[in-house]
Amino acid sequence: MICFQCDYLEGAHPSILKRMVDTNFEQTQGYSEDPYCESAKEKIRACANAPEADVHLLVGGTQTNCTVISSILRPHQGAIAAMSGHINVHESGAIESTGHKVLPLSSEDGKITAAQVEEYYNSHWGDETHEHMVQPGMVYISHPTEFGTLYTKEELSALYSVCKKYHLPLFLDGARLGYGLMAEGTDVTMADVAAFTDVFYIGGTKVGALFGEAVVFTDRSLSVDFRYLIKQHGALLAKGRLLGIQFDTLFTDNLYMQISAHADKMAMKLREAFVKKGYGLRYDSYTNQQFPIIPDAHLDKLKEKYGFCFWEKVDEDHTAIRFCTSWATKEENVDSLIRDIEAL
Amino acid sequence: MICFQCDYLEGAHPSILKRMVDTNFEQTQGYSEDPYCESAKEKIRACANAPEADVHLLVGGTQTNCTVISSILRPHQGAIAAMSGHINVHESGAIESTGHKVLPLSSEDGKITAAQVEEYYNSHWGDETHEHMVQPGMVYISHPTEFGTLYTKEELSALYSVCKKYHLPLFLDGARLGYGLMAEGTDVTMADVAAFTDVFYIGGTKVGALFGEAVVFTDRSLSVDFRYLIKQHGALLAKGRLLGIQFDTLFTDNLYMQISAHADKMAMKLREAFVKKGYGLRYDSYTNQQFPIIPDAHLDKLKEKYGFCFWEKVDEDHTAIRFCTSWATKEENVDSLIRDIEAL
Amino acid sequence: MICFQCDYLEGAHPSILKRMVDTNFEQTQGYSEDPYCESAKEKIRACANAPEADVHLLVGGTQTNCTVISSILRPHQGAIAAMSGHINVHESGAIESTGHKVLPLSSEDGKITAAQVEEYYNSHWGDETHEHMVQPGMVYISHPTEFGTLYTKEELSALYSVCKKYHLPLFLDGARLGYGLMAEGTDVTMADVAAFTDVFYIGGTKVGALFGEAVVFTDRSLSVDFRYLIKQHGALLAKGRLLGIQFDTLFTDNLYMQISAHADKMAMKLREAFVKKGYGLRYDSYTNQQFPIIPDAHLDKLKEKYGFCFWEKVDEDHTAIRFCTSWATKEENVDSLIRDIEAL
Amino acid sequence: MICFQCDYLEGAHPSILKRMVDTNFEQTQGYSEDPYCESAKEKIRACANAPEADVHLLVGGTQTNCTVISSILRPHQGAIAAMSGHINVHESGAIESTGHKVLPLSSEDGKITAAQVEEYYNSHWGDETHEHMVQPGMVYISHPTEFGTLYTKEELSALYSVCKKYHLPLFLDGARLGYGLMAEGTDVTMADVAAFTDVFYIGGTKVGALFGEAVVFTDRSLSVDFRYLIKQHGALLAKGRLLGIQFDTLFTDNLYMQISAHADKMAMKLREAFVKKGYGLRYDSYTNQQFPIIPDAHLDKLKEKYGFCFWEKVDEDHTAIRFCTSWATKEENVDSLIRDIEAL
Repeated sequence: MICFQCDYLEGAHPSILKRMVDTNFEQTQGYSEDPYCESAKEKIRACANAPEADVHLLVGGTQTNCTVISSILRPHQGAIAAMSGHINVHESGAIESTGHKVLPLSSEDGKITAAQVEEYYNSHWGDETHEHMVQPGMVYISHPTEFGTLYTKEELSALYSVCKKYHLPLFLDGARLGYGLMAEGTDVTMADVAAFTDVFYIGGTKVGALFGEAVVFTDRSLSVDFRYLIKQHGALLAKGRLLGIQFDTLFTDNLYMQISAHADKMAMKLREAFVKKGYGLRYDSYTNQQFPIIPDAHLDKLKEKYGFCFWEKVDEDHTAIRFCTSWATKEENVDSLIRDIEAL
Repeated sequence: MICFQCDYLEGAHPSILKRMVDTNFEQTQGYSEDPYCESAKEKIRACANAPEADVHLLVGGTQTNCTVISSILRPHQGAIAAMSGHINVHESGAIESTGHKVLPLSSEDGKITAAQVEEYYNSHWGDETHEHMVQPGMVYISHPTEFGTLYTKEELSALYSVCKKYHLPLFLDGARLGYGLMAEGTDVTMADVAAFTDVFYIGGTKVGALFGEAVVFTDRSLSVDFRYLIKQHGALLAKGRLLGIQFDTLFTDNLYMQISAHADKMAMKLREAFVKKGYGLRYDSYTNQQFPIIPDAHLDKLKEKYGFCFWEKVDEDHTAIRFCTSWATKEENVDSLIRDIEAL
Repeated sequence: MICFQCDYLEGAHPSILKRMVDTNFEQTQGYSEDPYCESAKEKIRACANAPEADVHLLVGGTQTNCTVISSILRPHQGAIAAMSGHINVHESGAIESTGHKVLPLSSEDGKITAAQVEEYYNSHWGDETHEHMVQPGMVYISHPTEFGTLYTKEELSALYSVCKKYHLPLFLDGARLGYGLMAEGTDVTMADVAAFTDVFYIGGTKVGALFGEAVVFTDRSLSVDFRYLIKQHGALLAKGRLLGIQFDTLFTDNLYMQISAHADKMAMKLREAFVKKGYGLRYDSYTNQQFPIIPDAHLDKLKEKYGFCFWEKVDEDHTAIRFCTSWATKEENVDSLIRDIEAL
Repeated sequence: MICFQCDYLEGAHPSILKRMVDTNFEQTQGYSEDPYCESAKEKIRACANAPEADVHLLVGGTQTNCTVISSILRPHQGAIAAMSGHINVHESGAIESTGHKVLPLSSEDGKITAAQVEEYYNSHWGDETHEHMVQPGMVYISHPTEFGTLYTKEELSALYSVCKKYHLPLFLDGARLGYGLMAEGTDVTMADVAAFTDVFYIGGTKVGALFGEAVVFTDRSLSVDFRYLIKQHGALLAKGRLLGIQFDTLFTDNLYMQISAHADKMAMKLREAFVKKGYGLRYDSYTNQQFPIIPDAHLDKLKEKYGFCFWEKVDEDHTAIRFCTSWATKEENVDSLIRDIEAL
């Protein structure tokens, strides 16, 4: 069975494991106060062109979303997000468990617009009974989105302007950030992400690490006492250097970008094959997640040899499914899949 | 100015105030452990034909929703509700502040159906990743709804059957219950409400009391230790007898139903006048809230003399507005409003 | 049975009830946005010599503590309080339910000192692992304390200085504030309370009102968006004018102080009688709560005719009990109790 | 510098790293639904002689405590713990962040007794106002405690009996469980831990793993829907097999016990040296944490070459400090430290 279900099927990039082995018996201080974490943070600041940013290393995505959001909001505030946003759908109520409502905006492609945020904000404050409703306190976006789509620099910049105007911190979930930055046709760089958000994170779990997410606060007023919150959320890894080693490795010699680019390249090969085959695409994704719409007759055949995700029934005879590539995807497996699709 | 903005403009039914004055210097134990509360609870049980029910008296509606819901749910569970449900819109995130997501179902008229609940439930459990999503743990409905609409006995019974089938406690918010029970054409009685829900509350604040909501648990397994939760939510009134006196009065000689019927009668006079005038009705309400759609040209004229709520712009020239009647509405004021509408 | 168990046995001062009856059919806007609330707030500001203060009217004490504290603290912070503080003992975990730890300081008399706060603060920040511990974020005191004791102006001022020094908002729970301000020998005035705290509340429930607590923020930066929090905590009374009417009445013609003084006078008569009888006093209280230590042989006799609270076993043969007087205590009942004690 | 500050200074046992490397490119399902996790769980059940137990693998200790406790308690309940318990002191309010108070019992040695729990329970329920106080809902102990001390089988069994009697689930924090089970003189086995608790966890982070804690529910009624809670707490590792591989390795060929025994042996060498030197011992620990009381004059000298923790000032001239050994401690370093102590 060749698996494309998700982007966390394998372990870590070998250079990460090698470094873990090499440093295994070093003694370092716990809780990310070691030289590896320092070095990783420095490299991340450099890569993001954000020399003043406050960087923290956490273990997982839900944890990171939850810790960041609960650090920013006061109790009566909520986080604006796309209806399909990960925090609204797939975190088992982690945000609500910290007392905050997710304020969902409709979205076809997983993205939200500056205009939507502005309208929501004005609608809230324009209502005489606004004190009876959850106050919008920040904006959450994901890039790439859960559907593999990407903001353009213009869209991101417009969102950020509206957020600034209304004092709504803008938080970008970059669980798959590398796959976004390396995508064909994108004009958004890591430095843009840093410039047009108040806080974002760089996903490691899905991009080459065993686990780990690097949170970057470009607005340092939002990260006051953040380490207390990390600890409270059970996100302060005792052997914090494991996070440092991983991000230091990923941000050495451009490794993070290189392995992301590989995943995107594999995804584009798949996309091309789907299109050539006449499959529709559920979302217009240029990143590592591809959502072809497949005749149900083809489904069973594919299942024999390949792992993928059921996404949704599209019509009586067609189903959207999801294939993920990753830093670890082998080109030979992609080629095999393509051949088998062609043969269907 | 004659006000119809809401159903809590005045104080309380005079017989309630009289009894408060009469008993003012009696000394009674605090926290609703007094004979007035006992008597009130007994009368409520009798009225609801629920001799085994566990009844508690709280101060306000948001408080009651929040205390009941947080008593029932485990941390990973949420409450299914109509998108327009009070807990989803107008409680400043009170439910989320206790850690729970509201799981909204679409609804045009403020009601949800047994089929919707069943579909949501099955869709949750049918999803392989259901552990990543908030688990539906109960169902919340309001009767009358926020739009003045009512469930039929058949609809309520069907909802309850589905809830039973899936072990989802059904909670009915009766902030305006009296106005529902006395509405023209309804076939739902207080006993039906008790029979077809696991817990519901009888609104006092909007129906004749200074304040107060009576929660009735017909499923007593849901109210274990409920007084701790009342206290924790700041809802345990020190001078609890004030709640007892009010509900005891309301449930003596059918007062609650009589004053509710008055409000409904006043509302129906308004409804008739709106229809006669050719106004559309935003919702098909037979209870104390009426939502006529009025030409904007009429709005300013009405505003000079009457208070009402802006509801929503319906089209370029028309606006839906809300008029509320209540136990305290004077017929002469209703007649005056009707005359002025006719004259527009 | 003559009851002294607590200070919320009766209803309200008759002038309050009278005014409720008189205004019963007036129509006013809900949620404390009515002229009665405005007037009450203005009078409170004047009485406290705090013309700029932000005043809010809530229903009960637990609710008020919980709403104020959760408004002030960030998620990783806790409230320093005496071990015996109401929030640490008798609120069913209301503070913890909002996510915050109460940080208890030892105390014999219910009070805490500036030195204790300073030491706790420094001990926290001096610990290398402080990020693993709850950060002290504010200080909570009660005046009178749960034991009837009082801060002197010097003690209060010293506490406030330390709080200012370390940016810890100082919150004073004045559930029985009147009884403190009118106590024999105190040098603390309402204006002092306002001057030496950042936020405090004036108890109505225990001092002449049916219910109600008036929160006074002298530091307005702490009350930003406070009405959202009131709503979220289920503490926004629909018929808010009931709170306005009560506090407006209490703060007209010095009524609050007069009825408080009466309760204190009655308490001092009792205290004198206890001392004369040779009873020890568990706490040195000059306010409306008195804690005599009584030979167990006297207990049963007293119980036949009087209600009071068991406090604690002091030794094999003696028990501390609590008598409360209030605005409603009749002098004839106090005299009767004194005679019966003399006769024991 | 030779470090003894804590037991998480190094990486992981080499056999764990080797297996991670060996399996790195295998594709497995995420979220601990892989064969490695299954195998690890099976071995843990066998080792604990608890064939029916429900086992879950989480990342860290604070996370585990918080997830387990919030799964068990209802909102008005708290967890009884020693004053010095990790959840009461060193988790930045994680337990309170889920809404629950820690109910601290005094303790000199980090342990609590069956009698204390019984007294607390009865005192709560015997109080007329118990509904105003947090209800004890479970008992938390650590073994070894934060002070390195251990329960005897008799003590643990007595605690469990009381807990059973009062329906208080007993939860044992075994962050350092291995070091407890292998300690000189203990009569408590892994099977005893399983038999005399309702849920416990086996620490990996401090005992040979990179990270990871294995929670064992012997009372399966406490783990219903536990995976939702793991996810909600951000504790569901995407590449869950990393946890499986680690625990599977630790519980193969008795590795967990062997490396724990090594740490204890190293600790006992230190203990012996301290005693021989005439140092007092702050706690009577036979596990991997040792707390000698050292003349301040010796402190600076030791600091030049060794890392250890300041614990507390004991008197004017003496300080208690903490040395930790671990699975990774090299005997040559222990010997060097002993020689240097002898030479002081």
